Amino acid sequence: MNDIEKKSNISGASALSEILKHNLKKVDEEIIYRLNKSTPLIADIGKHLINANGKRLRPLLTLTMATQLNDYSINPIKLAAAVEFIHTATLLHDDVVDESKLRRGEKTAHIIWGNDASVLAGDFLFAQSFQLMVETKSLEALSILAGASCKITEGEFQQIEIANKPDTSRTEYLEVIGKKTAELFGASGQVGAIIANGTIKQQKAAYDYGFNLGLAYQIIDDIMDYSSETNIMGKNIGDDFKLGKTTLPIILAWENSDTREKEFWIRTLQKLEHKELDYENAINILKKYNIIEQCRNIAKTFIDISVGSLDFFPETEFKKPLFDLSYQSLNRKK
Amino acid sequence: MNDIEKKSNISGASALSEILKHNLKKVDEEIIYRLNKSTPLIADIGKHLINANGKRLRPLLTLTMATQLNDYSINPIKLAAAVEFIHTATLLHDDVVDESKLRRGEKTAHIIWGNDASVLAGDFLFAQSFQLMVETKSLEALSILAGASCKITEGEFQQIEIANKPDTSRTEYLEVIGKKTAELFGASGQVGAIIANGTIKQQKAAYDYGFNLGLAYQIIDDIMDYSSETNIMGKNIGDDFKLGKTTLPIILAWENSDTREKEFWIRTLQKLEHKELDYENAINILKKYNIIEQCRNIAKTFIDISVGSLDFFPETEFKKPLFDLSYQSLNRKK
Repeated sequence: MNDIEKKSNISGASALSEILKHNLKKVDEEIIYRLNKSTPLIADIGKHLINANGKRLRPLLTLTMATQLNDYSINPIKLAAAVEFIHTATLLHDDVVDESKLRRGEKTAHIIWGNDASVLAGDFLFAQSFQLMVETKSLEALSILAGASCKITEGEFQQIEIANKPDTSRTEYLEVIGKKTAELFGASGQVGAIIANGTIKQQKAAYDYGFNLGLAYQIIDDIMDYSSETNIMGKNIGDDFKLGKTTLPIILAWENSDTREKEFWIRTLQKLEHKELDYENAINILKKYNIIEQCRNIAKTFIDISVGSLDFFPETEFKKPLFDLSYQSLNRKK
Repeated sequence: MNDIEKKSNISGASALSEILKHNLKKVDEEIIYRLNKSTPLIADIGKHLINANGKRLRPLLTLTMATQLNDYSINPIKLAAAVEFIHTATLLHDDVVDESKLRRGEKTAHIIWGNDASVLAGDFLFAQSFQLMVETKSLEALSILAGASCKITEGEFQQIEIANKPDTSRTEYLEVIGKKTAELFGASGQVGAIIANGTIKQQKAAYDYGFNLGLAYQIIDDIMDYSSETNIMGKNIGDDFKLGKTTLPIILAWENSDTREKEFWIRTLQKLEHKELDYENAINILKKYNIIEQCRNIAKTFIDISVGSLDFFPETEFKKPLFDLSYQSLNRKK
């Protein structure tokens, strides 16, 4: 598998987008149609975010799982738009909660339009996502995505609870990112398989593929806040450190650190008493213990599980790009 | 009708609560059960709000409409809990948007737990409400409540847009309060009739009763911010004036005001340049033109429509309390 990974120069996400380009266009049309039906301000905020987010990873999972199981109806399009709305709603609210100033190199919505507009626009997108789901008449898909939405907020809460605690366990961290990130990846795939009347095994495999990809995706995201190459990431590098967020690099660094280094983490991450060159010092400790590589290895174990679930899918043109997407996510730069 | 109204000493809401006390208890149990399944912080915030809100008006509408049409199943209970969750979620987010410090005499959640926790807890309650709806298997009820949720946020946005504009038209104002308040009242009744397999006419009547009651309810709410008796209301009196909110008293006052008075409204509500005794001066202008009475008369026209829709319901023990609830809402003090 590693051989195929290394040889693949084509982006799995791009390949999937190419196969599904007509469907993705319909997803975008559905999104724009719904936004334009609302108030001008909601439409502006929605479009700002939808345009800034070029990847459409979650809708791509929904469309891929449904299409490989031969559902060519409008339903996967509606569910794909719904998962993008849920994702966008959580981004809007996250930025308010985190007080982030940049996302993907763009000013965040709450900086442009204020907290109040961000909160309300998120609520609108969330409500609208349920309207889209209702139109597919699939109570199962509704239940899965309502459940995922609950878990996202639970995960966000638990993330706040573990903040400023560098001695958090790996298990706690994985539970948090499982809920706040991986659940929606999993659910996005799963509802695609459900709407296409996939077998229970296929539904579970679609969930497993997305969920484990999501775990790896978040770990790589957390790495990037401490990686020197990440000025192309389009958010403020070092933000996690400044806020004292407890992410995998910190947890592994803490496990490895000696007493003096632990005192450093307590001062910077727990007490948030920052001095000049603290971030550089943090990076040096991470380098000393090879933390980024350790994190990447953990992410790789999830990617292996993700790829393993592909065995349950039919042999279609989607399989190779899904495989590539998984392994390439380990080396993504943004 | 006015005779009956004047003679009634028993609160319509209390009478409904008494008839439905076992069902309401089950609604509360359902709410507490869902909250306890989440994280401790969500549970605390949820319970703070649910306990502070003694009225349960919206769940009462759902239960009443379903029970008078002979649905004694668990479904109305679940829908009633769902509408209370939606309502509670909007309160949480509203208080963040408005930066309110008090609600019903209690500190607001975002003052106690912070904006981040309020935003996330609202999201959780909202997602949880959809899980409850899914369990009833009624796509129609889901569609109605998802639609109402969209309209609530649209209404909140439009409320921001008309803020600091005392020359707003009555039509614009009614559209705003229709969306932000009355829709959920209407939907709460409607889903009760839907789940009980009421006729289309009964479903519409259940919506009309709630929607028009909701309009009157909001107008009375807006009056209370300018009424001398309102220190029992449990929110900071004069808040609407301080923030320059455009409510019906202001719109009618503007319509009646002479040039000098209009300059006063422009300075205080539009430019938010406040001096000592401005609030008292505002009250005096309202008294001069009998604005509170004018507002109450407009609210009364909606109550008349609300009561008119009762004709479509069967003759049950619920009719008299629903009638009383409507007219009594015109004189409510909190």
